[in-house]
Amino acid sequence: MFNSVKSFEKELVNLTSPNAEYHQIASTRQDMLTKPKGSLGRLEEIACFMAMWQEREFPKSEEAQVLVFAGNHGVCNQGVNPFPQKVTMQMVENFKRGGAAINQLALQHGAKFQVVLLAGGEQTSDFTLGPAMSEKECLEAINFGANSVDFNSDILLLGEMGIGNSTISAALCLASFGGKAKDWVGAGTGSNLMGIELKAKVVDLACSVNAASLGSSFEILCALGGREQAAICGALVAARRHRIPVLLDGFIACSAVAPLSSQKGIFDHVLVAHKSAELGHKRLLKNIDKVPILDLKMRLGEGSGAAVALAVVKSALACHNGMATFAEAGLV
Amino acid sequence: MFNSVKSFEKELVNLTSPNAEYHQIASTRQDMLTKPKGSLGRLEEIACFMAMWQEREFPKSEEAQVLVFAGNHGVCNQGVNPFPQKVTMQMVENFKRGGAAINQLALQHGAKFQVVLLAGGEQTSDFTLGPAMSEKECLEAINFGANSVDFNSDILLLGEMGIGNSTISAALCLASFGGKAKDWVGAGTGSNLMGIELKAKVVDLACSVNAASLGSSFEILCALGGREQAAICGALVAARRHRIPVLLDGFIACSAVAPLSSQKGIFDHVLVAHKSAELGHKRLLKNIDKVPILDLKMRLGEGSGAAVALAVVKSALACHNGMATFAEAGLV
Repeated sequence: MFNSVKSFEKELVNLTSPNAEYHQIASTRQDMLTKPKGSLGRLEEIACFMAMWQEREFPKSEEAQVLVFAGNHGVCNQGVNPFPQKVTMQMVENFKRGGAAINQLALQHGAKFQVVLLAGGEQTSDFTLGPAMSEKECLEAINFGANSVDFNSDILLLGEMGIGNSTISAALCLASFGGKAKDWVGAGTGSNLMGIELKAKVVDLACSVNAASLGSSFEILCALGGREQAAICGALVAARRHRIPVLLDGFIACSAVAPLSSQKGIFDHVLVAHKSAELGHKRLLKNIDKVPILDLKMRLGEGSGAAVALAVVKSALACHNGMATFAEAGLV
Repeated sequence: MFNSVKSFEKELVNLTSPNAEYHQIASTRQDMLTKPKGSLGRLEEIACFMAMWQEREFPKSEEAQVLVFAGNHGVCNQGVNPFPQKVTMQMVENFKRGGAAINQLALQHGAKFQVVLLAGGEQTSDFTLGPAMSEKECLEAINFGANSVDFNSDILLLGEMGIGNSTISAALCLASFGGKAKDWVGAGTGSNLMGIELKAKVVDLACSVNAASLGSSFEILCALGGREQAAICGALVAARRHRIPVLLDGFIACSAVAPLSSQKGIFDHVLVAHKSAELGHKRLLKNIDKVPILDLKMRLGEGSGAAVALAVVKSALACHNGMATFAEAGLV
């Protein structure tokens, strides 16, 4: 999709706009449905959001695509994770055989599920020694993400899998939003206090080693990201071009797109599915100005929170599309 | 089901117990599934809860019953509601024709939906002048609720419809939990500030007029409740006898069972579906020690919040029942 860094960066400043007219049409319909105005709360907001992006009075969610990107990270050489990197590949196998949480949840909602293992699971470079990816590697991953999007989808769910990627996430947030490493570092899959301290040190080191190349969104992604993070960015931007609303999973998925946040309005087509139990998510949500749909103390990743939240989106549209208006019901 | 007030009260002190053994079996299974322990958060908790009540290692949610009880209230004579009482019947007609939010949501989840209009929509007595119901009327409504439960259901969703019933709710909460009328009175379907003040006055008056008969759960229900509140209590207690987990809707549904709260453990088989936008719900939830599954700023009633939350219960069981264990997946 993007044949150069320049064409990717051009896309970021030429974003498809929301269609306010369809928001208005949907909002007018909501006020005519047989319920007190506003009484469906966020379901009303979500229905209008979907209408605005899909440019439909009666938005759809039948064709939902779940994309889970998986990758490995050179920083694991620093011992930041209690699990070996081969778990990434083992979980990808588990996804393919249908044994993971996301498989059950995608099935529950009739969503198409696809897992994409980037670069065959090869790890990026250790970002405490220099940039995690070359420009070419990063652009490749972005394009992999962008090209994985099914443009006939009604909604796109983005998730990830990658041993070590809560450390990557903390680094991306620190570079994108500032603060201290400790603000962004949490337990991840199961680090103890010592592990968390090590992660904070590693994140600080990565940011100082790469300090000279943390300017643009693309630069931050190259220096501190991973392939699955770049792919998520690519998919999010490709979805925007095609007006496909995005349902973003938890802390890792939100962190993946943190480097894009300097681009005004970049997340206008995005709903955040849930508030993760991971420490940094609350702060991250504040920085990208999003209120998550769910708060279920989940911290699994793999798009699982997004898939649970898809039910709420479907509920919103079921009410919006199916309810009788006051006139139809002959109500006062 | 209950041929006397005594037999109802006897039921309240002879509650079916949760089966801790099945909780343990489910919890052990959760720890063997291919995910970090605890990473599905409340989904894990819900799966274990369902196992414990259904006494199944693999709990079910296929057969969900949605019961919406509707009734009218004498207190409406005091002008506490901006809508006329005929709206209760009009909405019941709307439910029957499939035009309401709850119809769309029940359909989304393949749940059986049933609306029960109590006493043909006849209003109770005005509780500012004396008890809202006679013992006989209240017991009848309790039995109507209890007898409406399908004992083959996997889960029971309880909701309500009734013009004026946010005032009833405030009175029930005040009598059950104490505090001031203003703690429990909110905007309901659409009261303005003056309306809210009037509601508070009316609630205070009702509690003082009926002060001598606010002892037992049944007495509070008689004096300050309505028929749909009594029916919800009956259904909740009947479900307990048959180990059917209950998914309780928002503020009005939770207030309906507030009079039962003096009975230790009475809500152990109950999940609260969502935190309503109605003012008193937060305080009520604290009093019954429940953390709602959702917080979507909904305030519609009619079981709508419960139906949206049903998807989360289904997600919890889909993961619990369908995921591979570490051993099955050959994972480290």
